[in-house]
Amino acid sequence: MAKVKVGVAGYGTIGQRLADGVACQGDMELVGVADLAPTLAVRALKEKGMPYDLYLVDGADKSKFDAVGIPVSGTFRELIDKVDIMLDSSPGGVGAKNKVLYEKAGIKAIFQGGEKNSVADVFFHGYANYEKGVNQKFLKLTSCNTTGLIRSVDALDREYGIEKVAITIIRRVADPGDYHRGLTNALKIDKAPSHQAVDLMTIMPHIQATGILVHTPVTHGHIITVLATGKRKISRDMALKVFEAHPRICVVCIDDGFLGNASLFKYARDLGNPRGDMYEIGLWEDSVVESGDDIMYAINIPQEGVTIPETMDGIRAAMGMQLTQEEGTAETNKYLNIGRFARWGKSE
Amino acid sequence: MAKVKVGVAGYGTIGQRLADGVACQGDMELVGVADLAPTLAVRALKEKGMPYDLYLVDGADKSKFDAVGIPVSGTFRELIDKVDIMLDSSPGGVGAKNKVLYEKAGIKAIFQGGEKNSVADVFFHGYANYEKGVNQKFLKLTSCNTTGLIRSVDALDREYGIEKVAITIIRRVADPGDYHRGLTNALKIDKAPSHQAVDLMTIMPHIQATGILVHTPVTHGHIITVLATGKRKISRDMALKVFEAHPRICVVCIDDGFLGNASLFKYARDLGNPRGDMYEIGLWEDSVVESGDDIMYAINIPQEGVTIPETMDGIRAAMGMQLTQEEGTAETNKYLNIGRFARWGKSE
Amino acid sequence: MAKVKVGVAGYGTIGQRLADGVACQGDMELVGVADLAPTLAVRALKEKGMPYDLYLVDGADKSKFDAVGIPVSGTFRELIDKVDIMLDSSPGGVGAKNKVLYEKAGIKAIFQGGEKNSVADVFFHGYANYEKGVNQKFLKLTSCNTTGLIRSVDALDREYGIEKVAITIIRRVADPGDYHRGLTNALKIDKAPSHQAVDLMTIMPHIQATGILVHTPVTHGHIITVLATGKRKISRDMALKVFEAHPRICVVCIDDGFLGNASLFKYARDLGNPRGDMYEIGLWEDSVVESGDDIMYAINIPQEGVTIPETMDGIRAAMGMQLTQEEGTAETNKYLNIGRFARWGKSE
Amino acid sequence: MAKVKVGVAGYGTIGQRLADGVACQGDMELVGVADLAPTLAVRALKEKGMPYDLYLVDGADKSKFDAVGIPVSGTFRELIDKVDIMLDSSPGGVGAKNKVLYEKAGIKAIFQGGEKNSVADVFFHGYANYEKGVNQKFLKLTSCNTTGLIRSVDALDREYGIEKVAITIIRRVADPGDYHRGLTNALKIDKAPSHQAVDLMTIMPHIQATGILVHTPVTHGHIITVLATGKRKISRDMALKVFEAHPRICVVCIDDGFLGNASLFKYARDLGNPRGDMYEIGLWEDSVVESGDDIMYAINIPQEGVTIPETMDGIRAAMGMQLTQEEGTAETNKYLNIGRFARWGKSE
Repeated sequence: MAKVKVGVAGYGTIGQRLADGVACQGDMELVGVADLAPTLAVRALKEKGMPYDLYLVDGADKSKFDAVGIPVSGTFRELIDKVDIMLDSSPGGVGAKNKVLYEKAGIKAIFQGGEKNSVADVFFHGYANYEKGVNQKFLKLTSCNTTGLIRSVDALDREYGIEKVAITIIRRVADPGDYHRGLTNALKIDKAPSHQAVDLMTIMPHIQATGILVHTPVTHGHIITVLATGKRKISRDMALKVFEAHPRICVVCIDDGFLGNASLFKYARDLGNPRGDMYEIGLWEDSVVESGDDIMYAINIPQEGVTIPETMDGIRAAMGMQLTQEEGTAETNKYLNIGRFARWGKSE
Repeated sequence: MAKVKVGVAGYGTIGQRLADGVACQGDMELVGVADLAPTLAVRALKEKGMPYDLYLVDGADKSKFDAVGIPVSGTFRELIDKVDIMLDSSPGGVGAKNKVLYEKAGIKAIFQGGEKNSVADVFFHGYANYEKGVNQKFLKLTSCNTTGLIRSVDALDREYGIEKVAITIIRRVADPGDYHRGLTNALKIDKAPSHQAVDLMTIMPHIQATGILVHTPVTHGHIITVLATGKRKISRDMALKVFEAHPRICVVCIDDGFLGNASLFKYARDLGNPRGDMYEIGLWEDSVVESGDDIMYAINIPQEGVTIPETMDGIRAAMGMQLTQEEGTAETNKYLNIGRFARWGKSE
Repeated sequence: MAKVKVGVAGYGTIGQRLADGVACQGDMELVGVADLAPTLAVRALKEKGMPYDLYLVDGADKSKFDAVGIPVSGTFRELIDKVDIMLDSSPGGVGAKNKVLYEKAGIKAIFQGGEKNSVADVFFHGYANYEKGVNQKFLKLTSCNTTGLIRSVDALDREYGIEKVAITIIRRVADPGDYHRGLTNALKIDKAPSHQAVDLMTIMPHIQATGILVHTPVTHGHIITVLATGKRKISRDMALKVFEAHPRICVVCIDDGFLGNASLFKYARDLGNPRGDMYEIGLWEDSVVESGDDIMYAINIPQEGVTIPETMDGIRAAMGMQLTQEEGTAETNKYLNIGRFARWGKSE
Repeated sequence: MAKVKVGVAGYGTIGQRLADGVACQGDMELVGVADLAPTLAVRALKEKGMPYDLYLVDGADKSKFDAVGIPVSGTFRELIDKVDIMLDSSPGGVGAKNKVLYEKAGIKAIFQGGEKNSVADVFFHGYANYEKGVNQKFLKLTSCNTTGLIRSVDALDREYGIEKVAITIIRRVADPGDYHRGLTNALKIDKAPSHQAVDLMTIMPHIQATGILVHTPVTHGHIITVLATGKRKISRDMALKVFEAHPRICVVCIDDGFLGNASLFKYARDLGNPRGDMYEIGLWEDSVVESGDDIMYAINIPQEGVTIPETMDGIRAAMGMQLTQEEGTAETNKYLNIGRFARWGKSE
């Protein structure tokens, strides 16, 4: 069977990781990546010997790439003509413009969280609504926080039924190396409800959700506390059982050394993960507490890598490679080497 | 009527503010403060012309005070003999040792949050259990987060009845100028449930509480999100009504410029409050959302100043100056000039 | 003698402190302050009972002030007509536009560091070139870092003669409460030479200066290291002697508890300084070291308050109130209560 | 020729990287690593399939390793008996105790910066005094800042002769994932002169050095500004020429996107370096300025990886594998793939 041909538009923090993710999928071919300028990410691509071909989007000045010796394989339109599906991780708003090109060329596309929902036919999450994305033309992926949050809520919902969630998002304000945004010695609160709660309800309309988001001056992962109300009481043990069984959730303990978001980043570096990235969310066993019949817990969202698996799921759904959530996510997990460990830092 | 004579043991971050608070009370006399070493706070006292007399605790080296010209009025034991009640803001554990001296001298005392509950007869909050403290010998005050949290929960409870709360504490990790503790580019999670939830249940035993605490690398105030379950549904308007009526809660808006904990600190500086301190907690109108029948909201805890009013309440209760919560807190509020404004930054 | 009538344009971080500074000068009258919107600073002014009259600049929407009950005394143009000199702390670039109004009205003005040098007749520092500003129409003040830096270099230069300085500026990236700029877990370097070194040469053309500036994610004061080459060898004792004699320099010790910029902020709060501000720069005795014949030392720049005294000096110079640096700075120091202590935290 | 057998004592931040570095050397064999407890680093080793054998130091509780399924190959004393040389990256002070064991077993050792100089025969730097280490028993390596600093000063000194340096160290206060130390919204100054200046003089006794160190709340690399006085004037071009020629110095530009220490960390992650580590120091072309006859510049020190190459040099020297600096460092550079690029982010 021919491999599905995939392109990546926008080779930034997310685009680089999408390209790496596709390159790991045995049944996909990464045709190339597209960008506008010789950023550090593009320069690093060159220094690594151009493992991915580079195409230039409209408005790019090729002479700037020539000046630093970065080989260019063609234009973004040429890349579009070569692929079956484009992963669009362009800056917010650009994806909507690119969509016109995709429609014209008759290719599919998956947009990232920065675009409006209306850009896509389906607002997509690999676990919560995989089947809705099957054979669709345009998907939009949930943002990093929503992706990780839904993993945990979906896990509880499948097993026990969830009626309501209230979340507090303790948001990292920038990625490592970001200089265009930042916060210094300040917490910043957004108007409630947070968009992640609203997005969860769009993906899982049978659940009522609200939440408050507070930005914090750190770079190594968001932490979300979740208070979930089940259709019946969910005990601590019941919750941990489904969390530990989920391939994309790693249950961790404070006593093992996982003291916070920075411990998880450090551990991923020490594991030898490329860029020190994580696909899994962390979930602290020590945070899981009952609140009457409700269950409360805290998760860690590795913002740079968390959406990669669900985007691979999206390709599988949109291209009809696998028709069910079980099959689609299993293939993604296999190729990304996800689910090796029930618990990080612990033996079986 | 003779003024109640008050001493302060430990002239640190809290002790300084306790002394200032007592000095504002028209029916109390600040006899003096006690400390161990010529810290910056003690040096500042001297440079201000010794508005408060200084006494030395056991183990202090008087020659170090002499060397920098700081006048000493006597020993801690001499201070004890001159006061009716001691506010003990010594480092954690020292208060329990001091208690022996207080008992011997027959004086009363109020301990701060760092001591064990067992040090006191009553674990005290000015609004939630004032009457329990009346005419008692030894009180222990709730910690900064618990003090502010209970203000808001008690306000809802009095009016509507509260059955259950689940909190997420986004904790500032150090005070401005602290060099002995800190956190750099990291969130740190504590084992759940947080002690603040447990403490709330001790003070308000009819409420079920749990919560998760995450430390963040900032200095200007904790933020707590609260999900409260009432005996009946509490709407957004119902919640705001009681919050706006509470003298020690300031309802603020993001659109007015209160973007986070640092805005509140800045505003208090601009108001000309001594040290830029706040006695009031902030509560964001924009954060109040309904979660089904539950109500969710976010408050700001100014950790340096927030316990001062409730400690003044504690003096009033323990000394029998006022016998009811209404009268006791009203006197404190009057002398601390609390409750001038329904909402910060807004006209009535 | 009639008091000099002063206005302040722009009631932000600097404008508030300029107004407070003018209000302290016995021989000046603060006529009023002008701003565009009901910011937190303006709301705080109202809550304090309008100690300063408020005027509205062009483009301000008076209804927004009315809505929150902030009384308005007139327009910016009306303020201009009432004053002898305007302290312009408008956002960068606005001052240049305001200058047209000042010229038309025949009043003098002092601009802050955000404007181009060309806006003024003299680029001014109270100690280094006071006499150049005497009876001039338009002055521009040095920025916060340059103001503090020049204090220390001028002190050495007057006594021993300085030929060359090389500086490293460890810059705080935002003020407490700033949400429009920030840096998270990153140092950021500017192209060398830093503008502060260039500005020093403009003010003190007989000195050769260069330097490197690195932004750091903190809010409580810049630290500058200075390597100064004298006309002859300057020993550590020689340097300390002039630093300790300077009224606007406070020599501090690490062993006394002054561990860094945050200790100085904390100490100023504990001293009861309004807003916890400092007019003096800190200079660490423990940092002063000889490098062959050169002298190296580190100073702390309290960015919010440091330019206030030199701006007061500027009024004195421009209005011809005192004709020499000695007399002008002495009057400013007297009214701002500067120079009480040879060393912070120490007895004489 | 038989490979040199190397062990690593202490598998923490530095120990992990030393082990990785040795594993890359074609003429060395990493026999194993030793540690005390099943830390996250040791757990990651297990999850990677035990690429290195693990030995337990005295006091380790083997049952804790068994409990999490981490295979143990023997005791530290057994490891000692198998190696020619031990790289000791134990916590400060432990190395001195271990030395007794090394002496008894007749093996050589290289200690890290945390030990006292007296622990070793030679205080060592691969470029500045390689030959002093040849065939010695015990070396102590310079600390991270000193190692990087000396690279740049040695480069200038070899070519032009250096008489004097004055440095300002803008120190990162913790590594990513460190929770045992931190600083929040504060700069912290150390007493001058900094130990790095003193250490430079120990290694390069013909140079006079002093400096000031300021801690900053960041994790991704120190920045040092250096003012160097040559035996004759060193122009900007002269300095850049030797910096660009040095294999362990990467000259970078702000305009290319290297805005600060976090950009370098990000770039190393994007390059695919294990853990996102760097062996090279960064040197900003835009920071190099002349100060009269002196030259000033800023370097970035990647604290986690920078000492690895010089430690490999140390093995080569101590074991007599290469007898000169040129040969020793060239072998290290070859195996660590250092020196591929004259400038990061630029074509040749």
